[in-house]
Amino acid sequence: MRNIKLSLRFAGTRYHGWQIQPNGITVQEIIGDAISFVTGGEKCTVTGCGRTDAGVHASEYAASFKTSSAIPCEKLPAALNSKLPDDIVCTAAEDVSMEFDAARSAKKKRYTYRILNSHIPDPFLFPYTHQIKSPLDLKKMKEAAAYFTGTHDFLGFAASGFTVKTTVRTIYSLDIQKNKDIISIDVTGDGFLYNMVRIIAGTLVGVGCGKINPDEIPDIINSRCRERAGVTLPAKGLCLSEVLY
Amino acid sequence: MRNIKLSLRFAGTRYHGWQIQPNGITVQEIIGDAISFVTGGEKCTVTGCGRTDAGVHASEYAASFKTSSAIPCEKLPAALNSKLPDDIVCTAAEDVSMEFDAARSAKKKRYTYRILNSHIPDPFLFPYTHQIKSPLDLKKMKEAAAYFTGTHDFLGFAASGFTVKTTVRTIYSLDIQKNKDIISIDVTGDGFLYNMVRIIAGTLVGVGCGKINPDEIPDIINSRCRERAGVTLPAKGLCLSEVLY
Repeated sequence: MRNIKLSLRFAGTRYHGWQIQPNGITVQEIIGDAISFVTGGEKCTVTGCGRTDAGVHASEYAASFKTSSAIPCEKLPAALNSKLPDDIVCTAAEDVSMEFDAARSAKKKRYTYRILNSHIPDPFLFPYTHQIKSPLDLKKMKEAAAYFTGTHDFLGFAASGFTVKTTVRTIYSLDIQKNKDIISIDVTGDGFLYNMVRIIAGTLVGVGCGKINPDEIPDIINSRCRERAGVTLPAKGLCLSEVLY
Repeated sequence: MRNIKLSLRFAGTRYHGWQIQPNGITVQEIIGDAISFVTGGEKCTVTGCGRTDAGVHASEYAASFKTSSAIPCEKLPAALNSKLPDDIVCTAAEDVSMEFDAARSAKKKRYTYRILNSHIPDPFLFPYTHQIKSPLDLKKMKEAAAYFTGTHDFLGFAASGFTVKTTVRTIYSLDIQKNKDIISIDVTGDGFLYNMVRIIAGTLVGVGCGKINPDEIPDIINSRCRERAGVTLPAKGLCLSEVLY
């Protein structure tokens, strides 16, 4: 048996997230079918580095699966891509130790939330950004961002309906950049609660449009109260952009 | 009566080009419906700066229409965008002289053809680029590009099935740039024959992969023979990027 790590890249628009579901097409299912074809009908479980919500994209996603197939890793991406739809791509494959698990072995993840801050929509960026028409105060957003870094209980920044042992997470960095009309919120952490990045982005937008003061952020975090934080921004602006092992 | 010039931007994937057709949805039809709604049911003809093929994009397209509506131009883009689908956007509107005609008044047009030159596809760029897996020789492509500039009879670079008075066109510039894996072919001319940019791009790809020598280009142009030029590259890599009046 071998254990293989895949690097994937997908536009999530058409999918109900990563994880196989009874009522919607998912990336895990599509990848599983492609692997099954390439390995000659082997049924193997593909483990992803994490769930992604319906409509969320990934410029870098990692998955792993065990197989008895002898296919060389350098041939695997092209073989998989010949079976995959245009919006899911395998960019690399490598043999890893049998202990490696794409989910449990992940040390850090980086997500990017993209906002089109313009009163004019953009037909090319529409699937990958969330438009906010009123000008956002970048300076205040950056001030607020600094309060998120470190280890906190992020219970107030999680949607309900999840089961986790702890809601304490560490955010290593939260950077905000503006390039033309695109504001990118880049957040790296040891893990994220359900909808956490989209709620952090929504809270930063609340700061950027003057509804929340930057120095209210520590209080909002400490309150552990979902209602104190900002809205959950739409999935389409979110992209998993790095997984570190 | 007023004459209004619209600046538009659209992702052409879903459309059968600009011009209204009996068997397919077109950008002209969608824009016409939006104008009709905004002007309170007025039936007006929207003139585009040119036909675009099915699947071709425009980051800057110009159109004009005559109307008796009093709607201020500064309110027109938002009003139209509220009725337009996500892949067609009006970015600006201005009152112009009654003589202005988006098609006949156009002096120059710039098209950009984008090639993803990588053996790995990209799910985000897929709708807007044409992938070529084998590495292209950029230096040779640039050498070949220089021969296209100037005034030539481009009969050999036109698909059949068109009626024009003359097949002589002037190319003011043809620039080739590479940014990461994206090769952009940028061509500015006084006008283009049917499929001309896609055939020029295909010929440059022929040069880039060694099938055509750069110094064969003058002969190929002078032959006025479609078979001597390269293949017609797919529509999805093409984008109208500027119209100059």
